[in-house]
Amino acid sequence: MVIKTGAIKFKTKGSLDIVDITGELHKIVKRSDVLDGIVNVFIPGATGAITAIELESGLIEDFKEFLKRIIPEDYPYKHNLSHADRNGHSHVRASLLGPSITIPVRDGALVLGTWQNIVFIEMDNRPRSRSLVATVIGHGRAY
Amino acid sequence: MVIKTGAIKFKTKGSLDIVDITGELHKIVKRSDVLDGIVNVFIPGATGAITAIELESGLIEDFKEFLKRIIPEDYPYKHNLSHADRNGHSHVRASLLGPSITIPVRDGALVLGTWQNIVFIEMDNRPRSRSLVATVIGHGRAY
Amino acid sequence: MVIKTGAIKFKTKGSLDIVDITGELHKIVKRSDVLDGIVNVFIPGATGAITAIELESGLIEDFKEFLKRIIPEDYPYKHNLSHADRNGHSHVRASLLGPSITIPVRDGALVLGTWQNIVFIEMDNRPRSRSLVATVIGHGRAY
Repeated sequence: MVIKTGAIKFKTKGSLDIVDITGELHKIVKRSDVLDGIVNVFIPGATGAITAIELESGLIEDFKEFLKRIIPEDYPYKHNLSHADRNGHSHVRASLLGPSITIPVRDGALVLGTWQNIVFIEMDNRPRSRSLVATVIGHGRAY
Repeated sequence: MVIKTGAIKFKTKGSLDIVDITGELHKIVKRSDVLDGIVNVFIPGATGAITAIELESGLIEDFKEFLKRIIPEDYPYKHNLSHADRNGHSHVRASLLGPSITIPVRDGALVLGTWQNIVFIEMDNRPRSRSLVATVIGHGRAY
Repeated sequence: MVIKTGAIKFKTKGSLDIVDITGELHKIVKRSDVLDGIVNVFIPGATGAITAIELESGLIEDFKEFLKRIIPEDYPYKHNLSHADRNGHSHVRASLLGPSITIPVRDGALVLGTWQNIVFIEMDNRPRSRSLVATVIGHGRAY
């Protein structure tokens, strides 16, 4: 059994910037030499989220529009009464989607649908430097 | 430490068909001989989701109604401008709920509440053949 | 490789009582002697959920208000026609957020953002006794 860790670092533009992390995750899985198992990826931080989505430009807009519609930025959030960054909407959106995803690994690669990508969604309302934490667990090549 | 993999295959009727996968997951856990650990189940594909719910017919209707209410099918999705399958709502619903769940295993069985089942939700608007990927990780009987 | 299990037990006040479980999770991770790996925490039960959020009192109110707004208690749930506890909203809210979260462990501690806590959300409409199930998987100190 093998546990290997990795980090995915990038800067975001803030406000629903969506960053495709599929390629970086795949590299971490490949470097781990794990053949069969799982990989978990997590954002340490209360204003980011991770999910899976097809990277089609219209759909990406649709998903952002959905988040803005059910959790508007301009809304009387109590959080904004005491916090000058006024990012109540960022926190609610992040807690709805959640900070992590766990994906199976088979034959040394992520198991994903043809049109399924793993993305980080920047919920904060300003550019941020992000460092995601990946953990690969499974049988290695020596098994 | 043991890692065992399994697949759960079925056909769906499309459009919020909800498929109970608890029994199949339990069989995979049992076959794995893992006593204590976790099992992750994942849908490779961008128009399906996995969650936990009580299998009560009224509630199943309530949950479908909720998804239709916050993410209607008839809505000006940009995805539908370029994609003839017109399933923008399917993708947004799938990305909201997420493609996977991780459940504890104890004494060789899934740890679930009495009324808690694990379900696949077909978000696509047409019947699909699905193959979910399960990964069991834990201590086996020989431990 | 080590697998260690733990339980987090508490009573809730019902109706969106939010319980911080970060400290208890950290104790379980510490007791496990796992240095690098993951911890999964799961609620067996169909009317509870687990997510991550900043523990700021205004924000906690904002998140509760969001859940009440998109999934109102007073709504014609079909579940309530046959179930006297009238908790259709509890189930829908729980299935939306999901029953579990998986968090990385590094150097024997949870990897979390400065303002990121792990919480249980009581979706049921009455006080409940809850017992969450935690599973730590990773390399121990002897590795």
